[in-house]
Amino acid sequence: MSERRCHRTHSHMESGTDTESDSETMRCLSCKDEYGTRDAGTCKECYEEASETKEELKREIEDLKAKVAFLRFWSPLDHHHYHHLLHFNNNHQYHQNGNINRSSSGPYFTDVVLLAASDDGPIGSPVPVPAHKAVLVNRSPVFKAMLENEMEESRSGTIKISDVSYDALRTFVNYLYTAEACLDEQMACDLLVLAEKYQVKHLKAYCEKFLVSKLNWDNSVMSFAFAHQHNAKNLLETALSLITDNMDKLTKREDYMELVEKDPRLVVEIYEAYLSKQVNTAAAHRDSSMKL
Amino acid sequence: MSERRCHRTHSHMESGTDTESDSETMRCLSCKDEYGTRDAGTCKECYEEASETKEELKREIEDLKAKVAFLRFWSPLDHHHYHHLLHFNNNHQYHQNGNINRSSSGPYFTDVVLLAASDDGPIGSPVPVPAHKAVLVNRSPVFKAMLENEMEESRSGTIKISDVSYDALRTFVNYLYTAEACLDEQMACDLLVLAEKYQVKHLKAYCEKFLVSKLNWDNSVMSFAFAHQHNAKNLLETALSLITDNMDKLTKREDYMELVEKDPRLVVEIYEAYLSKQVNTAAAHRDSSMKL
Repeated sequence: MSERRCHRTHSHMESGTDTESDSETMRCLSCKDEYGTRDAGTCKECYEEASETKEELKREIEDLKAKVAFLRFWSPLDHHHYHHLLHFNNNHQYHQNGNINRSSSGPYFTDVVLLAASDDGPIGSPVPVPAHKAVLVNRSPVFKAMLENEMEESRSGTIKISDVSYDALRTFVNYLYTAEACLDEQMACDLLVLAEKYQVKHLKAYCEKFLVSKLNWDNSVMSFAFAHQHNAKNLLETALSLITDNMDKLTKREDYMELVEKDPRLVVEIYEAYLSKQVNTAAAHRDSSMKL
Repeated sequence: MSERRCHRTHSHMESGTDTESDSETMRCLSCKDEYGTRDAGTCKECYEEASETKEELKREIEDLKAKVAFLRFWSPLDHHHYHHLLHFNNNHQYHQNGNINRSSSGPYFTDVVLLAASDDGPIGSPVPVPAHKAVLVNRSPVFKAMLENEMEESRSGTIKISDVSYDALRTFVNYLYTAEACLDEQMACDLLVLAEKYQVKHLKAYCEKFLVSKLNWDNSVMSFAFAHQHNAKNLLETALSLITDNMDKLTKREDYMELVEKDPRLVVEIYEAYLSKQVNTAAAHRDSSMKL
């Protein structure tokens, strides 16, 4: 902040005397630098009001942060506790048939486990991720329907989730407790898929925002296809706009050619968006030249 | 906002011509009114930066609100569901001996009930307030110690809470799920006592803030005594300051005379605070008169 300086300008220099140029120079109440009428921002009253508003907003943020800290669960996966719990579950609680012994659900009172039914977990049987039905049911309408309706998952206390890595499942469950996750692009994609499947809107928005922030020319086509598949509207539109801004380079790309092979309808959508943009741009040009 | 107007002043009116007075009048970018150099607030750059900051703070607030909405539990006491659950508990689950049948904890997967052991509940046995051990343990270190250490409460699945009304207990439990409560002064006092007892800091701060906002001369002595008893520092200091500002009226009050009878040490504290204030004020006077 201290490095930035308000521009000093002396408008109406032509009008002359020292007293006059003094009268036109004011000191900014915020950055404390002098400025001329041409660079004037607000009156004093508005400045003071804005400062108060800012303080109020900051107080509101503090209150909300305290509320989040209060409402945030320490999840049964929190790393301080997790190894103990994992050990506990593996040795005492978790049986070969996939059921947990509910009467001894350990210090976390968990009453369900989730299992990643994919290959990249540890060798042997997959590691169960313990959780509370009450939390799952609160965060996801899909878990709610599953667990409240006495389906197989509710009776056995085990929810099998296919096509997901153990790490992604663990991060997913942890998010349900804490509303926090450490993302990279792969994890954001994996979690977005889970969030879509289990209708966890908050997580989906969180992943989508992250993926939008990571968009670039190199991943734009892949991101567009991914967004399409998982109904991620913001990511889709941002990726599409990035692609249509660089149409001259598109057809040389390998992933473009793959997309033409695999899902030509998506490629058609790209061309349609490009065409529509061209038409709009042309119309805007016409309008502005008519005004001239 | 539209009613407030920035003051128009024309400083240096003496300097004369039209062009000059124009050069000294600027339009506030916020309220759009004209103002003179004397009422100048900030330069344009600072105004723009402040506007951006404000937008950023507002976005942060929106994000935090969404996070709170996500983390907030619908509690087993939410009024849409509660009557069903109450009915369910009373008829099927809750037995004379105070234990619940854990294998059928209903659609909320509750695994514990709280009982208000006071007289102002409905006639007959008190109504149980269902809850989740995992939630209680997360929100209160006292419940954590109680439930994790296989004490009587953990085995029976029943926590008896003395000296509390059913309404206060229900509101307390609901707060643990939602971080929300509808307060009046009585409820704020009841909840503050529970929050102190079970070390729920967030709730204690919430009640204390409410009680500070309701402080007035009439309730100041009672509030002071209450704050003392329950270790509510902000409330104590605000009440004390209110009392020492009105010492001339204090000794005539009935609750003052009662306090002298019941807890004279608190009255001594009031006088000590008053004395200390007088000494400080006298010192400040001396300083300012020495400067003159």
